[in-house]
Amino acid sequence: MSNAFTSSPLFDRLLGDGKVAKAFGAESYLQKMLAFERAWTQALMQVGAVEEATGAIALNVIDGFEPNFSKLGAGTERDGLPVPELVRQLRAGQTEAVQKAIHTGATSQDVMDSATVLICREVLLDFETRGREVLARIDALSESFGATEMMGRTRMQAALPIRVSDRLSTWQVSVSRHLEALPELVQSLATVQVGGAVGLRNTPNDKGDEVAVHVAKSLGLSVSAVWHADRTSIVNLGNWLALLTGTFGKIGADVTLMAQQGVDEVGLDGAGGSSAMPHKQNPVRAETLVTLARFVAGQQGILGQAMVHEQERSGTAWALEWMVLPSMLEAAGASLSQAQALLNQINRLGARD
Amino acid sequence: MSNAFTSSPLFDRLLGDGKVAKAFGAESYLQKMLAFERAWTQALMQVGAVEEATGAIALNVIDGFEPNFSKLGAGTERDGLPVPELVRQLRAGQTEAVQKAIHTGATSQDVMDSATVLICREVLLDFETRGREVLARIDALSESFGATEMMGRTRMQAALPIRVSDRLSTWQVSVSRHLEALPELVQSLATVQVGGAVGLRNTPNDKGDEVAVHVAKSLGLSVSAVWHADRTSIVNLGNWLALLTGTFGKIGADVTLMAQQGVDEVGLDGAGGSSAMPHKQNPVRAETLVTLARFVAGQQGILGQAMVHEQERSGTAWALEWMVLPSMLEAAGASLSQAQALLNQINRLGARD
Amino acid sequence: MSNAFTSSPLFDRLLGDGKVAKAFGAESYLQKMLAFERAWTQALMQVGAVEEATGAIALNVIDGFEPNFSKLGAGTERDGLPVPELVRQLRAGQTEAVQKAIHTGATSQDVMDSATVLICREVLLDFETRGREVLARIDALSESFGATEMMGRTRMQAALPIRVSDRLSTWQVSVSRHLEALPELVQSLATVQVGGAVGLRNTPNDKGDEVAVHVAKSLGLSVSAVWHADRTSIVNLGNWLALLTGTFGKIGADVTLMAQQGVDEVGLDGAGGSSAMPHKQNPVRAETLVTLARFVAGQQGILGQAMVHEQERSGTAWALEWMVLPSMLEAAGASLSQAQALLNQINRLGARD
Amino acid sequence: MSNAFTSSPLFDRLLGDGKVAKAFGAESYLQKMLAFERAWTQALMQVGAVEEATGAIALNVIDGFEPNFSKLGAGTERDGLPVPELVRQLRAGQTEAVQKAIHTGATSQDVMDSATVLICREVLLDFETRGREVLARIDALSESFGATEMMGRTRMQAALPIRVSDRLSTWQVSVSRHLEALPELVQSLATVQVGGAVGLRNTPNDKGDEVAVHVAKSLGLSVSAVWHADRTSIVNLGNWLALLTGTFGKIGADVTLMAQQGVDEVGLDGAGGSSAMPHKQNPVRAETLVTLARFVAGQQGILGQAMVHEQERSGTAWALEWMVLPSMLEAAGASLSQAQALLNQINRLGARD
Repeated sequence: MSNAFTSSPLFDRLLGDGKVAKAFGAESYLQKMLAFERAWTQALMQVGAVEEATGAIALNVIDGFEPNFSKLGAGTERDGLPVPELVRQLRAGQTEAVQKAIHTGATSQDVMDSATVLICREVLLDFETRGREVLARIDALSESFGATEMMGRTRMQAALPIRVSDRLSTWQVSVSRHLEALPELVQSLATVQVGGAVGLRNTPNDKGDEVAVHVAKSLGLSVSAVWHADRTSIVNLGNWLALLTGTFGKIGADVTLMAQQGVDEVGLDGAGGSSAMPHKQNPVRAETLVTLARFVAGQQGILGQAMVHEQERSGTAWALEWMVLPSMLEAAGASLSQAQALLNQINRLGARD
Repeated sequence: MSNAFTSSPLFDRLLGDGKVAKAFGAESYLQKMLAFERAWTQALMQVGAVEEATGAIALNVIDGFEPNFSKLGAGTERDGLPVPELVRQLRAGQTEAVQKAIHTGATSQDVMDSATVLICREVLLDFETRGREVLARIDALSESFGATEMMGRTRMQAALPIRVSDRLSTWQVSVSRHLEALPELVQSLATVQVGGAVGLRNTPNDKGDEVAVHVAKSLGLSVSAVWHADRTSIVNLGNWLALLTGTFGKIGADVTLMAQQGVDEVGLDGAGGSSAMPHKQNPVRAETLVTLARFVAGQQGILGQAMVHEQERSGTAWALEWMVLPSMLEAAGASLSQAQALLNQINRLGARD
Repeated sequence: MSNAFTSSPLFDRLLGDGKVAKAFGAESYLQKMLAFERAWTQALMQVGAVEEATGAIALNVIDGFEPNFSKLGAGTERDGLPVPELVRQLRAGQTEAVQKAIHTGATSQDVMDSATVLICREVLLDFETRGREVLARIDALSESFGATEMMGRTRMQAALPIRVSDRLSTWQVSVSRHLEALPELVQSLATVQVGGAVGLRNTPNDKGDEVAVHVAKSLGLSVSAVWHADRTSIVNLGNWLALLTGTFGKIGADVTLMAQQGVDEVGLDGAGGSSAMPHKQNPVRAETLVTLARFVAGQQGILGQAMVHEQERSGTAWALEWMVLPSMLEAAGASLSQAQALLNQINRLGARD
Repeated sequence: MSNAFTSSPLFDRLLGDGKVAKAFGAESYLQKMLAFERAWTQALMQVGAVEEATGAIALNVIDGFEPNFSKLGAGTERDGLPVPELVRQLRAGQTEAVQKAIHTGATSQDVMDSATVLICREVLLDFETRGREVLARIDALSESFGATEMMGRTRMQAALPIRVSDRLSTWQVSVSRHLEALPELVQSLATVQVGGAVGLRNTPNDKGDEVAVHVAKSLGLSVSAVWHADRTSIVNLGNWLALLTGTFGKIGADVTLMAQQGVDEVGLDGAGGSSAMPHKQNPVRAETLVTLARFVAGQQGILGQAMVHEQERSGTAWALEWMVLPSMLEAAGASLSQAQALLNQINRLGARD
């Protein structure tokens, strides 16, 4: 889904996240698939299914591989995913022994799920850093303005006075909870996919378990049961993204309300301008946080549909993840950036003197 | 949302769950709100804000309370929730001192969030039992039929032979993961809500923290930060329900496919009849599992919208939880029942001899 | 899904709609199914498939029918729907000829889809009346307060002055558009379902088309192609409900913002009270309109999943409609009531003098 | 949201649609915004607000405009949309009179909504053509194979024999309904947005209505009430896309089921291969239709949230449309392509001889 709003210089800096987009880009994704294929060939050597010399050639082939993207795309259209064509390109022109040293015993979903997990882990570790920066910025704002009195508001109505630190406390608690939950999430997600054609993990020569351990080790992943048709980790990841962006959406909603004339409880440097009313200072980043929260929360309702896999592997449910998850991650990245930038814009919290 | 399909004798046994419906019924919910008010008055006594004698009268009032439901409903229409009218009814005819011994310092959301959490915990503990029964039944089926060969199918196509136990293994792994995640979920959810009017937890007389501890102890809950506007636990609960029903949806999808003529890899006792074709044996429970999975997964996309609370407390976002969460729990209950019943119907897995 | 929040005296007057709940109640639904069965028997007589005398007895049986709800519920659990058991009860104790004069040639989905459509039409005609009342009330408010100046606000910021009538104009235009679209919606929805077991509309004796015309006429419905697996009309209905409640949600959002201290552009009689802060006047009905809008909009994302019917008829996709559509209709009814009541509460629009 | 799966050569031909992606690309979108600005300047001339000579220079400026995309992107990040920076670039270096001849009286949302509508119309007209091709292909299949007997299946179970034409009839009826609904949809959507800063349509010099007529005429659009905050047309468009892809999803589901071993009621040329099992023929396009249907249906549950606009214009709700609608259109384009290609693959319907 490529369009001006979400994947173009026109809007990218508002709604997109360059880092996540790059991490999930075709080039990056291909590299992760090749990393899997490399680890696989190595594992075949380690369990003795491929001879050293043959394996060494195969590894060289993988390392020096130059993809024909156009043919990979045509392969995806035909096969539903690029792996069969990728394997064809990798094996092209090689001896039969070398051909067998590449991918044999793995299935497309092994390659792609592992690649996805590798990217997600990188993105999440970056999110952790960025999340801590957001949290530090809230802490700093609380330090600067926390003691100021402001009106506490419930159900959109003035209730009783609070201090700025009281409102920020909810922000802090929520963001902290999400960051604290992250290591466990990453750990359960960062699991290699090694199942083979129908998930038996029995190739080659019933040494599938050993192969899984080797592949996992090469890729820095852990091993669990085959998860071809158990998408718990993916849905848990989506849920975490909905929580994170939901909290930033709450922060955004608060700021849009605080920025209103008549309320005026926040000062923002460099808020957005209007083409028709140059005097306006729109809390654009705060609005965007709400938009991104609603987007990600809603996507989770679609991602959850992907739990209903048929039989050993479902093309239908799986491809739904592809359409939804990377966008959720990129929106979450945008949310992190917008949150950080919004908090940096704040030069006052609480009423003007 | 009361209708023939989801809350009537006509359809309840298909799509509903009597236990959950009762646990979230008006009578039960009221009892939980009263349990909170009782614990609150006790806590006020324990921190010395209410004298023993006065408190004892207040506790008697609460214990002997007979609600006027009609007026409670009218109160909800006016106030957005029943608590102000409930407090009015509780205090009616009492001395000023006794009136002050009831609810003073608490806010409506304290009462309702705590009541909701109490019910959810009960329901989840019951789900754990029922989930273990489902798992035991899958284990038993694997014991009986696991060694039988059947065709492994990927992307809806025959792939390679597997054994029945291989397909069941995915079911087992998924259900186990959800059950293993449950204790932590319950623990983080079973947190008392004590915040007071604007979430400061500072009443009475700045002894709010002590009060929170006492109330929590009375109710068997733990204490954490005020979560009036941090709905992480609620959204995590919804996610778990989507995972659970999603897995049962996967099981249901598998069974509908196995029950097809031409595939015939499952035998079902007492499958559903047709009004037009008495010869048919419809895999009704399996279909229902898919329906319930799609329902719950989709609801999670709505529940996530409720993360965007405004300010100290949001009426809008909060009420969205009320509309969505109990239905998700009841659908999950129905899914557990249907899963159990479906598995009990199975008299053969794998091809006929 | 029966719970305190959506189907009990505690919350019904806030989030529910008694009229819709009753129209979709088990008793009402059963009556509509019986209306179909009556029309069916009559049609069998009209095309000569059933003799007059036999048919007359059958009609008497239908007219005097007293259902055993408990057995109907058990039938639903077994068969996935109550129709086979309903037919069993209708035919019980009758001669074979009379038995054949009841339901023969129809299928369960014919009965239920037609019953659903009959109820939806009634509900929608009532909605039209209520929608016109809402519109009239907006017109009256514009008449009373339209000339008052107020601040136009865009992106949550003061922009340029407008008049009250300008803001109300958007409300009027949107509500009017929905009301104007209603007759066509009702017309395309109010279509009899007559397909028979596999949708061929060929019974009895290839006189299915004639039968469809007769049944439709009896029920005041029109005839179109069999729509067992074409759910366009249902999804269009859901979309209309999302539009209607979405517009009321926009009105609600406007009022919550206008009711804020510091903005104070609306006066509300009898706004909601707080258990902790008796001085508060919460814009409860306005908040509720936003909640209902988000609820219904989100449900439409689930209802749309029900387009994916398998083969001639899908139990899975169809039952998803049952779980979602009546709740959407009831929420829309609640939205209409809350909109009307909110508009009646308004005693001032625009700034105080 | 740019990623390998939805916007790269790796997957584009499976899940994307080049035509729609291009139509919504940054370059195309910019051209539509410039078309609006051109029409606006012309209209200012036509109502006498800008002198001919000045206007002519302005039109030249617009026609010869070369955008600085990087600065436009920075402007979007700051202002929430690119229009203020676009206007700045257009006016740069011009006399004050020429500056005033560009954009004066319009607001950013006028430009962007009109541009969006222009693109949607183009896309929908193309969809009509492609939809008719799909329909023609179904007709041709019915011509070729319609008379063949096959098993009618309901609730995933063999029911009674039908002919191939009976199953295809549901496909035909559904696709036809969507195509028949298209002209009215396009007509109500293809409405110029002319409202000005706060939607009053009163500039310049109270000649806003005249301006609207001129702008509409230039762009080939019609005029209706200002719809800054009435998003009915957009949500109706989304609903139509859900219907269209939902129907193709139903067709896809049917084909995946027909392609199963043991059922074998369809023959497919060139179905997809597997990296692990060269013998497999996966019904990839059919699966993809189901995926796309679930994706679009779910997005509609998010798009509907965008009905809740605040006040005269909402940045939050509006940007949610940007994130969702173009992806829905592109997914619908992909669905049309996959449907056409799938139907072209079919070389047999009904059982093998």
